[in-house]
Amino acid sequence: MEKLTIAIDSMGGDLGSAAMVEGAASAMEAYPFVEPVLFGDENILRGEVKKYREMKIIHAPTVIEPNESPTLAFRRKKDSSIVMGLKYVKEGNASGFVSAGSTGALLTGATVIIGRKPGIERPALGTLLPTKTGHVLLMDCGANMDCKPSYLAQFAQLGAEYMQKCMKIESPRVGLINVGTEDEKGNAAVKEAFSLLSEISPGSIENFAYAGNFIFAGNIEGREILSGEVDVAVCDGFTGNVLLKFAEGFAKSMMGMVKEELMATTVSKIGALMAKGSFKRLKKRFDYREVGGAPFLGLNQLVVKAHGSSDALAIKNAIRQCVEYQM
Amino acid sequence: MEKLTIAIDSMGGDLGSAAMVEGAASAMEAYPFVEPVLFGDENILRGEVKKYREMKIIHAPTVIEPNESPTLAFRRKKDSSIVMGLKYVKEGNASGFVSAGSTGALLTGATVIIGRKPGIERPALGTLLPTKTGHVLLMDCGANMDCKPSYLAQFAQLGAEYMQKCMKIESPRVGLINVGTEDEKGNAAVKEAFSLLSEISPGSIENFAYAGNFIFAGNIEGREILSGEVDVAVCDGFTGNVLLKFAEGFAKSMMGMVKEELMATTVSKIGALMAKGSFKRLKKRFDYREVGGAPFLGLNQLVVKAHGSSDALAIKNAIRQCVEYQM
Repeated sequence: MEKLTIAIDSMGGDLGSAAMVEGAASAMEAYPFVEPVLFGDENILRGEVKKYREMKIIHAPTVIEPNESPTLAFRRKKDSSIVMGLKYVKEGNASGFVSAGSTGALLTGATVIIGRKPGIERPALGTLLPTKTGHVLLMDCGANMDCKPSYLAQFAQLGAEYMQKCMKIESPRVGLINVGTEDEKGNAAVKEAFSLLSEISPGSIENFAYAGNFIFAGNIEGREILSGEVDVAVCDGFTGNVLLKFAEGFAKSMMGMVKEELMATTVSKIGALMAKGSFKRLKKRFDYREVGGAPFLGLNQLVVKAHGSSDALAIKNAIRQCVEYQM
Repeated sequence: MEKLTIAIDSMGGDLGSAAMVEGAASAMEAYPFVEPVLFGDENILRGEVKKYREMKIIHAPTVIEPNESPTLAFRRKKDSSIVMGLKYVKEGNASGFVSAGSTGALLTGATVIIGRKPGIERPALGTLLPTKTGHVLLMDCGANMDCKPSYLAQFAQLGAEYMQKCMKIESPRVGLINVGTEDEKGNAAVKEAFSLLSEISPGSIENFAYAGNFIFAGNIEGREILSGEVDVAVCDGFTGNVLLKFAEGFAKSMMGMVKEELMATTVSKIGALMAKGSFKRLKKRFDYREVGGAPFLGLNQLVVKAHGSSDALAIKNAIRQCVEYQM
């Protein structure tokens, strides 16, 4: 295989550049054709890279902080790791970009700098959630608040393309998140998106690059998102973002209640101890690091938003996503 | 205390009128001043009532089925238990209405027949969800798909009023569900609702009956809905409905995974057996029957939508909600 260059914002994550560089190194190990290019403070990165093998470093001295206004930061911090990395991708030097930095800055920057795929009005952020049998791509998870019906129809195709490429699902099933499964249900945008999706055959959106198969499974209700019935669950970015964070909070509050009840009596405490392995395996199934990051889809190249607290494993898997998307 | 009459649709539930009548009887036991009036097939109801004490029965021979169009059914089935019961409430004969029948028919019918509170543009459906410390009222859960900002601001007040009356919370904290906590976040409707809610002082919406206290806690993210930080979480009916059903599906899929992992080894199986009491207590915390039904707020009288599969305990608690709302 030819070399595949992936640009990496090496400054944005909560764990600092150590995790980013270690992740890049282990991706090189797993995929020898991968050439990471690290963007960030040259002095810091040189020290980290020494621990592994040679990697290309491009000096980008500033960082866009999560609390900065994305639009302002972009204009001012031309020498930040995100801006320089995205430009590098835009100029055709790399096939993908991974960042664990500010989501707002990354989404705004990627759209402006890399640019949209032909036929795509709005790129969208996908998140892979575990189902009983595999994963479902929930999208949009927060890039677009108010969505036109055509955006939703495009999210469906972008999601299907991703699941086909990265999850090797030949004909991804796409569901439209709604309040009921009947055709006429929903808010105004979703109702119209349903009609659009019912008419679309793959590749029918003008100039749209994705010509693969996908099956429009119709409306799905909230309870079907994680049931494994669909591979892609489409909604506007407001709903998706609320859902995603709700799931986080719900899992946490449920686990808290489980813990509280298990610690309530001596017998149940011993029981919990005996079932420790089960809880560990369960935790692994919910471990976001195993799937990598959130793909930002609809741009001319793949951009992966890694979780802020990504460690080397998560970063390695985010790079893997860029690799698979190219194959 | 004076007599308090509550009208009960005794036909709609999945468990038939037996559960509805038993629920009414145990509500009479708990609240001796409650006078249930049962709407449904007189012959069936007479047989059920015999098991307990005397209750008023009003013959309503037909039932609106869940698969019927609510609007059509309302025009055609004037002698259905829902239509006759709602008219009874409208005419001032009862102070509340409980139904475990078709949600669509109940919401449409209640709005048309009972009518809206002065100053309220759209009534909304609330659902009580368990938090670490108590309950949060999520609303709207599906009555209104596309919401104007003013609707959301009214939901906030209606929810606060309910939590004050029924949950005895002196100054309910109301959060606006959003994608971030910053003031400028959200879709168009939520952004404007934020401004409206920031300006509202209790009772300031013209003619609006609720003059109690409430604290606008600002925007909350999905993960804060169940954290116990707010007593009311406001969103449009599309988001609320998707969230609610997602929670259902998520709890089910999580519990399925827990079970799968616990059954994986002999040791963990024994552990699970020892912790059986914990899982039972956990189940009780999530038991919707303990809280009653979903209050449909913003009408001149309280209407409670009980779960389709409500048993006597759930119905008793739905009647309790009507009682508390009057006190």
